[in-house]
Amino acid sequence: MSDLPEQTFSIIQKLEGYSGKSEGPAISDASLYLEDATLPMPEPAAGQVLIKLRMASVNPSDLHFIKGEYGQPCVKGAPAGFEGCGDAVAAGAGAEGLVGKRVAFVAAGSGAWSEYCVTQAAMCIPLHPAVKDEDGAAQIVNPLTAIAMVDIAEKNGDCFVISAAASQLGKLMIGLARDKGLKTICLVRRMDSADALRALGATEVLDVTADDFEAQFASASRALKPRVFLDAVTDAISEKVFVAMPNNARWVTYGKLNPELFPMTQMGQLIFQSKVIEGFWLTRWMQDNGALMADLAKEVQTRFADGRWSTDVATYLPLRDVVSGLAAATQIKDGKIMIKP
Amino acid sequence: MSDLPEQTFSIIQKLEGYSGKSEGPAISDASLYLEDATLPMPEPAAGQVLIKLRMASVNPSDLHFIKGEYGQPCVKGAPAGFEGCGDAVAAGAGAEGLVGKRVAFVAAGSGAWSEYCVTQAAMCIPLHPAVKDEDGAAQIVNPLTAIAMVDIAEKNGDCFVISAAASQLGKLMIGLARDKGLKTICLVRRMDSADALRALGATEVLDVTADDFEAQFASASRALKPRVFLDAVTDAISEKVFVAMPNNARWVTYGKLNPELFPMTQMGQLIFQSKVIEGFWLTRWMQDNGALMADLAKEVQTRFADGRWSTDVATYLPLRDVVSGLAAATQIKDGKIMIKP
Repeated sequence: MSDLPEQTFSIIQKLEGYSGKSEGPAISDASLYLEDATLPMPEPAAGQVLIKLRMASVNPSDLHFIKGEYGQPCVKGAPAGFEGCGDAVAAGAGAEGLVGKRVAFVAAGSGAWSEYCVTQAAMCIPLHPAVKDEDGAAQIVNPLTAIAMVDIAEKNGDCFVISAAASQLGKLMIGLARDKGLKTICLVRRMDSADALRALGATEVLDVTADDFEAQFASASRALKPRVFLDAVTDAISEKVFVAMPNNARWVTYGKLNPELFPMTQMGQLIFQSKVIEGFWLTRWMQDNGALMADLAKEVQTRFADGRWSTDVATYLPLRDVVSGLAAATQIKDGKIMIKP
Repeated sequence: MSDLPEQTFSIIQKLEGYSGKSEGPAISDASLYLEDATLPMPEPAAGQVLIKLRMASVNPSDLHFIKGEYGQPCVKGAPAGFEGCGDAVAAGAGAEGLVGKRVAFVAAGSGAWSEYCVTQAAMCIPLHPAVKDEDGAAQIVNPLTAIAMVDIAEKNGDCFVISAAASQLGKLMIGLARDKGLKTICLVRRMDSADALRALGATEVLDVTADDFEAQFASASRALKPRVFLDAVTDAISEKVFVAMPNNARWVTYGKLNPELFPMTQMGQLIFQSKVIEGFWLTRWMQDNGALMADLAKEVQTRFADGRWSTDVATYLPLRDVVSGLAAATQIKDGKIMIKP
């Protein structure tokens, strides 16, 4: 590591542990949660690699996390950021094979929002040259979530419901569903994405803010009989959607974009209609499905390399502008924020 | 059937279909939902028996049902009542073997709150002489629910939570848990039943109306790690209980004794702690587990015959007084209302 700098510029967490709040991923001022820092260059231990960042994507889970509202606690002083793409420049024992390779990675050791970071070799996927850095930086969290959740949907019927369907994850799921011959009822908040979603394969696109949304959804539900609701929003509208779904419906929450509390109005449906409410967390799913990872990684890369999937970029945000610029960048819709060193 | 009367006195339903409301099982005036009627004697079809009623028990599901708030619609003019004990006095083709036998039954053809009713032979269990009419009249709904739900609990850990634990069903479950070596955290609204529940085998008895209930439950949950919550109440307190339970907790609602709506405050636990919310309905469970019924019926009878289980009676209500007296009878706690012809 003699040719590496002795320090790395990083965006570090200001909070410790959990906030105890549930405000959702919206942030008005990133400096409440993040600050710049110059840290000693991390050293990869056995089984780890040191990665020089090319690009890091911002997922809703990153925002939940820095606010202390995620499934794992904040660590004050440690870099933020779960996912990125970069070059493996050094390795601990047993991980030397990755050195010199461009990889997609999930940051298990230190966060991805850093010029250099350390992670487990097992959390790295070497990238095919045809895969762009943008796709590499968003190759794990959303794609594996899409594959895992569409698999849940497929096991339960031939139609499912997607909320926040215009999100990157929503688009990945719509494409997967189309390729598997599954129908999708796609819920959005603005119909300007409707044509694009239909072009990707969406069966129905419904605007949850429409006056007659409930009637529209009830009609679509009767016609298409969706059995699974993959829900990033988890609010009062979600509850109405679940209530309107047929017997045996499963409401799978994987995010809470709307922090408002909401009442359960039809608990009897759980009893008489065999409905179930459950959650999905990629971290647990990866722990439970480790043996599948190599094959899935191949499928994901092939989809990005041949253009069936692609990552829309909302904006590129320099690493040194994250603290000052992240809040404004999150206001840009229809694409991912890409952090670049 | 020449020695049978030509008519039967019955308590019939006044509503048709579903009410669309969720008021819960409380009734202030049974004449809103029920009326007296003299009906032609029903004729058993093939596979059916005609039963002369000895005693019918009143379950919460009966009250939900007559109000139009149950999982199956009201049928205006048809007798009410799901469960009873009586003598098979006539039979259709294939069911003759039951004639002359005293049976516990679930009313599938016409309701049990009637001098005579018809049901499927498959819904009848011939009674051992040692089983009292009171136990026979409450032999199916509560006992099978108890067995099925404790089985769910047993598959998930060695401790579970019971709400409305002083109910007949709660007591059956406490006894079953004790015999299986399972621990129970029993939730009640009045501590005057606590000693009786502990004598039955309850590990902890907690008063949900106590000022420090939440702290008490949190402490018990940390110590005993319950994985399943069998919940007849399904209200805001239930939600707090579920939130305080450990990872992988399953909230199994089987009733809504408290009709108030309540907010979901910690949907993130479904994601990060793999918690699940689901329902239990005996009717569906019996459809799915038909092959087990004969053995279970034997186990249930043995438990009643040898005294491990027994049915506490709140009051005996003559069939002709149901419309005028049912509401007042439901005010008597700690036992079942038994309707007698």
